[in-house]
Amino acid sequence: MKTIASATGKLGTTIVIVGVGLIGGSIARAVRSRGLFERIIGVGRNPQRLQQAVEQGVIDEYACHGSEAAAQADLIVVCTPVEQIAEDVLELHACLPAGGVITDAGSTKGGICRRVRDGLETGHRFVGAHPLAGSEKSGFEYAQADLFEEAVVILTPDDSTAPFAAERVAEFWSSLGGRLVTMGAAEHDLILAMTSHLPHLVSSALAASVTERDLPLAATGFGDTTRIAAGDPRLWTSIFMENADATIHAAEEFLLRFQALLSALKDRQPERLHSLLSTGKQHRDLWQQTNTR
Amino acid sequence: MKTIASATGKLGTTIVIVGVGLIGGSIARAVRSRGLFERIIGVGRNPQRLQQAVEQGVIDEYACHGSEAAAQADLIVVCTPVEQIAEDVLELHACLPAGGVITDAGSTKGGICRRVRDGLETGHRFVGAHPLAGSEKSGFEYAQADLFEEAVVILTPDDSTAPFAAERVAEFWSSLGGRLVTMGAAEHDLILAMTSHLPHLVSSALAASVTERDLPLAATGFGDTTRIAAGDPRLWTSIFMENADATIHAAEEFLLRFQALLSALKDRQPERLHSLLSTGKQHRDLWQQTNTR
Repeated sequence: MKTIASATGKLGTTIVIVGVGLIGGSIARAVRSRGLFERIIGVGRNPQRLQQAVEQGVIDEYACHGSEAAAQADLIVVCTPVEQIAEDVLELHACLPAGGVITDAGSTKGGICRRVRDGLETGHRFVGAHPLAGSEKSGFEYAQADLFEEAVVILTPDDSTAPFAAERVAEFWSSLGGRLVTMGAAEHDLILAMTSHLPHLVSSALAASVTERDLPLAATGFGDTTRIAAGDPRLWTSIFMENADATIHAAEEFLLRFQALLSALKDRQPERLHSLLSTGKQHRDLWQQTNTR
Repeated sequence: MKTIASATGKLGTTIVIVGVGLIGGSIARAVRSRGLFERIIGVGRNPQRLQQAVEQGVIDEYACHGSEAAAQADLIVVCTPVEQIAEDVLELHACLPAGGVITDAGSTKGGICRRVRDGLETGHRFVGAHPLAGSEKSGFEYAQADLFEEAVVILTPDDSTAPFAAERVAEFWSSLGGRLVTMGAAEHDLILAMTSHLPHLVSSALAASVTERDLPLAATGFGDTTRIAAGDPRLWTSIFMENADATIHAAEEFLLRFQALLSALKDRQPERLHSLLSTGKQHRDLWQQTNTR
């Protein structure tokens, strides 16, 4: 029997990645290194940048209009800033061929999933996703094929999602190396406000507090604590605005803890200070034990 | 002409390290790898631990009474917790042979230098030092010979210090690979409150804010921001108590910045939020540019 060389990847022929930055570029590199799709089409607004991404082997080809590319897609991943994702999904979903599915990589989920659900019929083929992986760097130049290995990927399908789409999107993120967790979009936003958006707010305020004069006397403790403050202010403004209520709630929880430490210090109460610092250490040690990354 | 093998290290025969933990152990390893002294004596309260440090090749021998060891020392480095350093210095200074000098590695300097100055005659041989290097880990098992390479080391001699002692102590820290900065002890405490003690307070409050339920959904951003919160609560309680006023001042500066971010978010003002986040990014980027570590 004659075998025809397979013209498809493990998950299909064509993946369309909308927004080829650090996350989109890393997805492209991971897809290529794992042979998941035969063809990787990048979509964006800047043809020069997309051409560079082709030249660097990140994507195979590019399109400036997502709708043309979408019509050929087995899978679309929307990696645009969070405030733009729902609009992109609604536009591209209309162009998907039969059997095609669409996911995103946004750091917030509640608003996106609500707007998509409101804009589409039940049985739609969008599945919200948030890979807990990234960097303070921007641009596909920093893309890493192994960015999603062992990373938690949160999926937020709901009862409006076509079951086959939920399955295919789960298979996709799992094939990138992700450890899948499924939950509601609102629950996602509450938890991530605490574990991701609050740390960014704290880190930024801390970095801003240290003056230029004092920076040469800041060492690795400061460096680590403020690493994420180097993230793109535009992207983070969008994330905070999208998840404002939950982030405000998280910030108030943090303020209670910080004020408790501060008042123990003001009152010169070493035992209370020690006890509060021990709680922080216990949580951090627990995180270390449960996190392989 | 017959050459006799040198029986001394580059800086003298005997160094005495009081407190053989992460910092003391790293000094010992650096001294050995650079051939700075012929003999390394560790001093501490726990003979079992000190015997382990001998067996692991960190120190050559140990003593439980610092005064005996001090009488043989060309250089003593006091690496005990900050609240204990001044007392140790005063006791050991009395036992130093002629020409012997003494330094420390404490994270605070104001109180230590004041108590030493009050307890000794002008022309004493103590020079306060703070190497900006460390780890959230404790114990000589984590000691690294290269811990001080390119690290800033702040020295705080004053007009009560014997000039030859200031020179010899500077030569010592420089020989470990440190980049020396000299300033007053009070100025040190004001700046380090901002660049080191505040980050610890913030990191600890952040780690404490995230509940056990949410920790599995915390990624590397949380991990980096809270790394230092895993530090020893006992050591950090001492540091905060020693530098309470300056740390309280730093904490209030941080609270202003944090409240500004929070109110921009509450008022749904993306431009103001973006501007505040940009300030944090600028400071962090500047730190990255000026810091090789």
